[in-house]
Amino acid sequence: MKKHRVSPAVIRRLPRYYRRLTEMQRSGVERISSSTLAESLDLTASQIRQDLSCFGEFGQQGYGYNVETLRAEIAQILGLDRGHTAIIMGAGKLGQALIESFQFSQNGFRLLAAFDVDPHLVGTRVAGIPVLHNDQLEDFAAQHPISIGVLTVPKPAAAEAAGRLVRLGVQGIWNFTNTRLSVPDSSVKVESIHFDDSLLALSYMISEEE
Amino acid sequence: MKKHRVSPAVIRRLPRYYRRLTEMQRSGVERISSSTLAESLDLTASQIRQDLSCFGEFGQQGYGYNVETLRAEIAQILGLDRGHTAIIMGAGKLGQALIESFQFSQNGFRLLAAFDVDPHLVGTRVAGIPVLHNDQLEDFAAQHPISIGVLTVPKPAAAEAAGRLVRLGVQGIWNFTNTRLSVPDSSVKVESIHFDDSLLALSYMISEEE
Repeated sequence: MKKHRVSPAVIRRLPRYYRRLTEMQRSGVERISSSTLAESLDLTASQIRQDLSCFGEFGQQGYGYNVETLRAEIAQILGLDRGHTAIIMGAGKLGQALIESFQFSQNGFRLLAAFDVDPHLVGTRVAGIPVLHNDQLEDFAAQHPISIGVLTVPKPAAAEAAGRLVRLGVQGIWNFTNTRLSVPDSSVKVESIHFDDSLLALSYMISEEE
Repeated sequence: MKKHRVSPAVIRRLPRYYRRLTEMQRSGVERISSSTLAESLDLTASQIRQDLSCFGEFGQQGYGYNVETLRAEIAQILGLDRGHTAIIMGAGKLGQALIESFQFSQNGFRLLAAFDVDPHLVGTRVAGIPVLHNDQLEDFAAQHPISIGVLTVPKPAAAEAAGRLVRLGVQGIWNFTNTRLSVPDSSVKVESIHFDDSLLALSYMISEEE
């Protein structure tokens, strides 16, 4: 599969394609045209064909895509088969909500452990995942390769926790702290979920209607 | 302020401008050129000027923007001064994490109440916010205008909860259920935070480096 440098906008759309194809496969859809897929995603067919062309040849002119095949190919592009691992920094309510309800494995990640400083949490398990003390992080990492750290610590603890993850050599940080992380090592990818940005976009949309 | 129909991409960037300007204001920056603002956001200066031109005239050619003024103007565009209100459907761990840690008021929303069915939660308060029984929702809404419902119920309860919010006449739904909501009434705006999409984008970025 040929790979060019891919734009951030394409990287954002790939997971949406994957999600929609997963839904379609579950509903028993076997084949789909790029225009039908596009319509269901508020995109154009040529946009989808162009995005996918970054990664090689998909589908057959005039016959559309085989849903299962395209889904599998996008899964591979997204790295779902790489055996990625994750740990969670911060086993408070947000951390616990992710451990209990978020399907890490469906997204190609094995969740190994959570870390916290709260003595009421350390030593317990949440949905089978052990909660270890922050101080055990480096020892744990020496024994278990960690692909990414999920950051669900309180805002004031974000910078220090991110720094520790970077020094451990993680490849990525999934940042839920609603704060901007400055990570000097550009080989560590930071993906932030900004709740504010999302709510403000909604605020704009409902204000526009008034 | 003149308002054209604004593209979804612009709506996504406005909160990022607002967030960055807030950070700059806190750091004591008074004036900023569009190129400096652009650089800090991985955008181009002409992109920013074009985005803002959807809403009128901002800044002065050659002098850049006054940070405080531009921030206030974007706040107004985003609807932060409209007195929006919010309720939370689902006071489990994710709901509680939002109640305790997310700054609704900083984003122009007054959080009124949370709703759940768990007898251990109903009747309590989380960070001062009352948790009421789901059955009280309609009565509550009759007395308190609700702009948006925040959906943090478990996935299987998402569709029904969304339907109730639509029937109540909310203007928007902030959807954390990681499930696609089909809302027939298009005047109700749905903004979804898809944790999967975010983690898959990170997965792509770290896989690309391997």
